[in-house]
Amino acid sequence: MEVQCRLKKVQEMKLKIIPIGGLGLIGMNMTAFEYNESIVVVDCGLAFPEDDMLGIDLVIPDITYLKENIDKVKGIVFTHGHEDHIGAVPYILKDLPVPLYATKLTMGLLDRKLTEHGLLKTTKRKIVRPGQSINLGEFRIEFIKTNHSIADAVALAIYSPAGIIVHTGDFKVDYTPVFGDAIDLQRFAEIGRKGVLALMCDSTNAERAGFTASERTVGRTFDNIFSEHKNTRIIIATFASNVDRVQQIINSAYKYGRKVVVEGRSMVNVISTASELGYLDIPENTLIDLEQMKNYPDEQMVLITTGSQGESMAALSRMAANMHKKVVIKPGDTVIFSSNPIPGNEKAVSKVINELSMKGADVIFQDAHVSGHACQEEIKLIYSLVRPKYAIPVHGEYRHLKAQATLAQKLGIPSKNIYILKTGDVLELDEESANVTGSVQTGSILVDGLGVGDVGNIVLRDRQHLAEDGIVIAVVTLERYSNQILAGPDIVSRGFVYVREAEDLMEEARDVVQDAMNSCISHRVTDWNRMKNLIRDYLGDFLWKRTKRRPMILPIIMEVE
Amino acid sequence: MEVQCRLKKVQEMKLKIIPIGGLGLIGMNMTAFEYNESIVVVDCGLAFPEDDMLGIDLVIPDITYLKENIDKVKGIVFTHGHEDHIGAVPYILKDLPVPLYATKLTMGLLDRKLTEHGLLKTTKRKIVRPGQSINLGEFRIEFIKTNHSIADAVALAIYSPAGIIVHTGDFKVDYTPVFGDAIDLQRFAEIGRKGVLALMCDSTNAERAGFTASERTVGRTFDNIFSEHKNTRIIIATFASNVDRVQQIINSAYKYGRKVVVEGRSMVNVISTASELGYLDIPENTLIDLEQMKNYPDEQMVLITTGSQGESMAALSRMAANMHKKVVIKPGDTVIFSSNPIPGNEKAVSKVINELSMKGADVIFQDAHVSGHACQEEIKLIYSLVRPKYAIPVHGEYRHLKAQATLAQKLGIPSKNIYILKTGDVLELDEESANVTGSVQTGSILVDGLGVGDVGNIVLRDRQHLAEDGIVIAVVTLERYSNQILAGPDIVSRGFVYVREAEDLMEEARDVVQDAMNSCISHRVTDWNRMKNLIRDYLGDFLWKRTKRRPMILPIIMEVE
Repeated sequence: MEVQCRLKKVQEMKLKIIPIGGLGLIGMNMTAFEYNESIVVVDCGLAFPEDDMLGIDLVIPDITYLKENIDKVKGIVFTHGHEDHIGAVPYILKDLPVPLYATKLTMGLLDRKLTEHGLLKTTKRKIVRPGQSINLGEFRIEFIKTNHSIADAVALAIYSPAGIIVHTGDFKVDYTPVFGDAIDLQRFAEIGRKGVLALMCDSTNAERAGFTASERTVGRTFDNIFSEHKNTRIIIATFASNVDRVQQIINSAYKYGRKVVVEGRSMVNVISTASELGYLDIPENTLIDLEQMKNYPDEQMVLITTGSQGESMAALSRMAANMHKKVVIKPGDTVIFSSNPIPGNEKAVSKVINELSMKGADVIFQDAHVSGHACQEEIKLIYSLVRPKYAIPVHGEYRHLKAQATLAQKLGIPSKNIYILKTGDVLELDEESANVTGSVQTGSILVDGLGVGDVGNIVLRDRQHLAEDGIVIAVVTLERYSNQILAGPDIVSRGFVYVREAEDLMEEARDVVQDAMNSCISHRVTDWNRMKNLIRDYLGDFLWKRTKRRPMILPIIMEVE
Repeated sequence: MEVQCRLKKVQEMKLKIIPIGGLGLIGMNMTAFEYNESIVVVDCGLAFPEDDMLGIDLVIPDITYLKENIDKVKGIVFTHGHEDHIGAVPYILKDLPVPLYATKLTMGLLDRKLTEHGLLKTTKRKIVRPGQSINLGEFRIEFIKTNHSIADAVALAIYSPAGIIVHTGDFKVDYTPVFGDAIDLQRFAEIGRKGVLALMCDSTNAERAGFTASERTVGRTFDNIFSEHKNTRIIIATFASNVDRVQQIINSAYKYGRKVVVEGRSMVNVISTASELGYLDIPENTLIDLEQMKNYPDEQMVLITTGSQGESMAALSRMAANMHKKVVIKPGDTVIFSSNPIPGNEKAVSKVINELSMKGADVIFQDAHVSGHACQEEIKLIYSLVRPKYAIPVHGEYRHLKAQATLAQKLGIPSKNIYILKTGDVLELDEESANVTGSVQTGSILVDGLGVGDVGNIVLRDRQHLAEDGIVIAVVTLERYSNQILAGPDIVSRGFVYVREAEDLMEEARDVVQDAMNSCISHRVTDWNRMKNLIRDYLGDFLWKRTKRRPMILPIIMEVE
């Protein structure tokens, strides 16, 4: 009897999939897989702040649920080394000191972060090769070779007693990759044959028809540009982490007898990690230091730089704005953007293009980039190889997840078996059924300077208010008990109007606050909060009438005995 | 002898072209043409604030040069009714009360602005038809029919004693326009035959190959979508000013037996102006009020709305965010974006698409829009008809002006005859030569609420600083002469940290200011500025060390006798 009960319990146990980071957001990729007493976490990314997160440096996921279940957490497994998949690691390790599992280049990039934060020695790490599997509690995780805009990306087959989950990570199908093997489509097919419970597939390009072009096509574009611009210096901006792109630039440079200089901190970092680990093949005497650049004529130089997204402090942006110490843009320079603007960066990129053009540079921003994400035909291919029971679109905004859901439906997956999860949703599933059974605490933790989580909604709302119309401060010193005004009211403003041109306004504002205080005295108002509210009302109304603006109004009352 | 001298003087007189608004910026189109004692101004647009212009509502050109030469200014001539060509009029008329010349729809939109600002009665206005000419001082201005994304757009032939300038305004070549005639290519050719001194041609799409599709193609897309979505409500967001687009939506609605509701203030305004003036043909009983919508089933409704750029306060954005009072998005609604995001608006548009998708709406954002600007083949066509001596690319960012310059060069115009002007440049030209001979005062005047020009760089820099890290205020009340502290120091912060979680930090900050004051007392520092600097230094260092943030620090000293 007891045995039967236990058996029943095991049979009834379902797998839980819980997005801890923003599954429908750009960045902060982090998903928990839970079965019985085991939790495995896939990826641990950061997000860059949204426009309304004023002053915030970066955003990390709230891992409360994992902290509360720390005894179950067997480790974090990484699909690839982009910031939105590994960037939050140094911030969460203190609360969640678990082992990390990743391929060689991904681990190299992780190690660099751990070293910076002094966490390298205390963190258990294991490098896993594509094709290998690791056992984590009741899970077995198999790493499957894929292609992406960073080398050493993998998909994961997550074997649990409730069934197999295939998680693609960020991927594309590149039949002719620049480095290493093409995506292991055979393995996807084999696992598909075994029977896959759910497919979690990259949705980023799910709105785009067709097939993403091979990284190798960009190499041909570089060759064409190099052969057409034999007499000018060439400057190429691209993503620091796109090691294969850098490889192709180096290949073209070598072919056309040019030396290569690398500029920009993150570019130098990634290239040194990648070449140490054997992911870059740089011919001897090709790479030179920035300082040596002056010893070579322009037509023998290629500069690889950061700043392809118009980031204001990146090397290319500083060159464009004449603020780079060592590189001055000259008429005739050929500048290539080997990138597309990430949504939100269009204006910043355009600004840099304008500045470069004004300096006489020839700016090329077409055909020198391919995406790292699968388009619709590739997504269909993976679905057709894996043939999952359930589809759980991942990676991308809601519109992209929805687009993949539509594709999945067209491929015959019933809409009731397609789950677009929200962060924190607990999806429980097995061969019998799948249901969102609840939700756990999740959210965005804002990092500002050294502060992790000390900037919340109130602070952000204040920053927004200050940014919009500035602040007007009314200070008054009162005598204790009598509430007689001993000093002030004084009016100080910042970010409101240019005070020298608004002296009359400020003088009148002072009178308005005086009126508010007089009203308090005549109505025997002695409660400071009521006084402050009255000042706020009087002054707010006055300034709105006069300027149609609503600065933050901050009354300060001081008291002298 | 005297006659000869005078003749010589007349012969030597050149035409001056002076961009008053941002010639290389988006918006604020305004150009002065000056010959001898006559100035004619073309357009008078506003710009929307850049990201770093925090809290600013709109930007208008600095017209100091025109004010200083007001006796010469004969009037303002308008090419079409978009905000970046007419929007600054109400703000500059006080300083520059000159007559306005425009086609009927453009004047209708101007009249609406003038009425709002109480300027209609005091402003001289004249409606000019395409094909007509007007004499303004020593200039004659001919209006030439063009096509654009707003009806009644014209190019201008500006006849001066120094030669003819052709200014295209914003234009495209539409052989099959929805309303009225196609662009008058014959007239461009005729004027070209006479000999054109300079062509000022729209550069917006100069980077795009090929030909911009006819507005009519969008009508076909609408028909297709309407026939494929016969059972759902259809909501279409587009630019309020695109009257032809609205016409085509109404046509499709009528064809498919749907009623039309118009929502969003600017949309209602433009449609009422356009239909009053005969630019819209609305079949009887097609337009209904929003209130009547509940009387019709979904499949008989089309809603035309503002918000195609994701503007947070526009009707569609409010519907998407569940903040619209009368329209609730339902699963199955078909929402069409008949627009492309203007650079910088991509994320806002994506946010609205995500929100609509989450509510179950089917969002269509492809093929339901064409540009209103000429692509490369159209630009080449105009150059080939006009055959100017000089090329002065206008409308667009620097990169676009540059792209047109490259096209002009390919068409045989020597690079020395191509001028990319900066705002304020004075280009003097005649058949003999052209030179930038100087520059006049120009710039951007920021409008914030009722304030025109009272927000300058200092205020903006303060808003930026406040937005980034907030403000920390240190207040202290001193006794006059003795400088003894009577109250405080008190610390108040906004937008810095969430104070309830940072009480210790604030307590320590208070001690730091106390230390600064003690140091003043022990060093007999009595000068308030030196005291404040010391407080700023002490507190700034402390907060940076503890938080790696640099809030604005504002010391306030009060004095009691």
